[in-house]
Amino acid sequence: MKNKEWSAEIIAIGTEILLGDIVNTNASYIARGLAALGIDLFHQQVVGDNPDRVLDAFRLAFDRADIVITTGGLGPTGDDLSKEMGARYFDVPMEENQEARTNIEDRLRQMHREITPNNWKQAMLPQGAVPLQNAHGTAPGFILRKEDKILIMLPGPPSEMRPMFDAQVCPYLRSLSGEVMLSRTLHLCGIGESALEYRLHERMERMTNPTLAPYAKTGMVDLRITAKAATQEEALALIYPVEAELRQELGTLIYGSDDDTLESVVGQLLIKKKITVSAAESCTGGLFSGQLINYNGISEVYKAGFITYANEAKEQFLGVPHEVLLQHGAVSEQTARAMAEGAARAAGTDAAVAITGIAGPGGGTSEKPVGLIYVGVTVRGRTEVLELHLKGDRQENRHRTVIQALNKLRLMILEEPDPES
Amino acid sequence: MKNKEWSAEIIAIGTEILLGDIVNTNASYIARGLAALGIDLFHQQVVGDNPDRVLDAFRLAFDRADIVITTGGLGPTGDDLSKEMGARYFDVPMEENQEARTNIEDRLRQMHREITPNNWKQAMLPQGAVPLQNAHGTAPGFILRKEDKILIMLPGPPSEMRPMFDAQVCPYLRSLSGEVMLSRTLHLCGIGESALEYRLHERMERMTNPTLAPYAKTGMVDLRITAKAATQEEALALIYPVEAELRQELGTLIYGSDDDTLESVVGQLLIKKKITVSAAESCTGGLFSGQLINYNGISEVYKAGFITYANEAKEQFLGVPHEVLLQHGAVSEQTARAMAEGAARAAGTDAAVAITGIAGPGGGTSEKPVGLIYVGVTVRGRTEVLELHLKGDRQENRHRTVIQALNKLRLMILEEPDPES
Repeated sequence: MKNKEWSAEIIAIGTEILLGDIVNTNASYIARGLAALGIDLFHQQVVGDNPDRVLDAFRLAFDRADIVITTGGLGPTGDDLSKEMGARYFDVPMEENQEARTNIEDRLRQMHREITPNNWKQAMLPQGAVPLQNAHGTAPGFILRKEDKILIMLPGPPSEMRPMFDAQVCPYLRSLSGEVMLSRTLHLCGIGESALEYRLHERMERMTNPTLAPYAKTGMVDLRITAKAATQEEALALIYPVEAELRQELGTLIYGSDDDTLESVVGQLLIKKKITVSAAESCTGGLFSGQLINYNGISEVYKAGFITYANEAKEQFLGVPHEVLLQHGAVSEQTARAMAEGAARAAGTDAAVAITGIAGPGGGTSEKPVGLIYVGVTVRGRTEVLELHLKGDRQENRHRTVIQALNKLRLMILEEPDPES
Repeated sequence: MKNKEWSAEIIAIGTEILLGDIVNTNASYIARGLAALGIDLFHQQVVGDNPDRVLDAFRLAFDRADIVITTGGLGPTGDDLSKEMGARYFDVPMEENQEARTNIEDRLRQMHREITPNNWKQAMLPQGAVPLQNAHGTAPGFILRKEDKILIMLPGPPSEMRPMFDAQVCPYLRSLSGEVMLSRTLHLCGIGESALEYRLHERMERMTNPTLAPYAKTGMVDLRITAKAATQEEALALIYPVEAELRQELGTLIYGSDDDTLESVVGQLLIKKKITVSAAESCTGGLFSGQLINYNGISEVYKAGFITYANEAKEQFLGVPHEVLLQHGAVSEQTARAMAEGAARAAGTDAAVAITGIAGPGGGTSEKPVGLIYVGVTVRGRTEVLELHLKGDRQENRHRTVIQALNKLRLMILEEPDPES
């Protein structure tokens, strides 16, 4: 079975998705996983909890793909008949799966919950199915294979589906193919997708293995290098020189790779360079600090933050001079500078980030329109101010500002010397 | 054509969705809109930017639905051939649409952008199509109808798709049917979905028009009342008594309805009762203030926030006594209380919210495990502390804490008298 080109299709089962009550994030999660494994995916479907339509969806999917992965429809209530439709498609009976039953019992005991008859229904699987353990819920998933048709049914809640997919389904899928597909994603901030594409266009055209592709995120761009090879080592050997070349060319536009986030990179840099930090926020109202504090190790360097929404708070807690506010206004380069320096002083930190602006929808004037935002960053006595002109709604403007502020802080810390060891 | 039962199907076109690089939020947005209009939706599809597969998707969709709504595949690049597949399915030629061309010209002029040959390609539509104006981009959408088959093609970026769907597609769809379907959503906080279902189970079973259904959100539950009638007024007349009954029974568990958010409700209550507020956050690191400040009118009452991540910051800015931190620890009822009262004092506000806890993944002990979080709320000298035991990851624990804190503040403000007018 080695070197067969496997193709997959995803079916989300659930009336709540059809009604738009929940967003189908499972599909994108699984799709990313399949892409990383080099398994082709040409279609996704969504159907409600209706047995006939679920069965039709199975038939359609297996007409065009080898592997069908479903999410949802495994709950303990009477509506969830999709497992039975899986059995019907494969023409096997349902039966109690001993392993699944034991897992459910263990899980419920752990949760100190009583076992109801509905729970036993969850141990019923199509004959021949290999159960997948659910560490975060009671509904087991399963894999059912008949020749080259493989049905993989997973629970709907992402908190149950994701670990099951990562820990049990991915290794299984990897074992199907003799080929390794490996990706490395570089994260960029400070350049738009089209500008990046323009710069790399020719190179992307002539590359075949590895390939290079940009993906736009809000305020950031990802650049993915993907290689196919017989082994992991060979794939890596194809990726590394391309990555080195890109790093050479793009320099500090690249802030990290793979699992790095902007806040984890900034946090690690602050810790490495022994720079303590504080923040003063107006229109972002705490979101900058909130995002920086996503990084679990941040307590070593993050000392305090001030949300100085009112002008009096800017004066009282940051010592922004009354005349600066009067003369230049709260949304000005001068106020951003005074806020940053004031926060560093008040919190006794080496660095500080200040944000003041008009996020919208109200509050704009012709001179200072909605979307005008100043980001002041001070690091060891050196202060710089970034002027942003954003065009989104209130939420988007605040989100983009936080990204720009984190990135500005990153660029300024990069220029600081490493501490002597 | 009145009183025909219309059915629809959604097709998302885009390789970036198949690869999992973006989540298909368009489908849930449109699905919610269709549900509100009473149009049946039994299937959703996702296909890549491949002309043959797009055409197959059209055929499949029109086999089982009257109205097919697509998103994506309308961009100016060569890959976007889906419009042409629409024309092919309806067996009409592509031609330049004068109205679409004028709209694109106007839009580009507004944006001070040069017109490229690719832009003219965007004015090419299937013969007979009615263009939909794009106020946020250059790609027009369109509606193409032949007898009882209706194809509606919309752009992929949600910022372009959503306003087009709301302002142009919904009124069109509404005009198709003689029946009105109206929903009212009540938002609840402080009760789980299963507990709510248990309380309302019998009532939900016996109701047919309107119907009643709960939907779980993170830390909250929605309750949707949906009525079908000949006119909007009649539908409202069916909904109102049910809503009144539910409000009677569920009381302050209901925090708002429809477009209300927890922060907009809290913000409006603060303004109405003339209560100023500040915040002191440790593990949530600004996310509480960040969410409260989502509410655009908040500047009237929100004065300042303190992100006191370090113990010294708790002492310095909030005046938390050193002995309290020493004796009870930073994560304790006593510290939460001192932080709330200290924030109100420092910022000179009537009310304050304080959050201190262990969000995880590290930092837990057997005595104070990960997920132990204290929320202190003080309103005009009265302080209460909430003790939370959360079981999610760092992100989820912080998010749930913010919701609980907003809700606790809401409940305490509700008990305050209205100001004399």
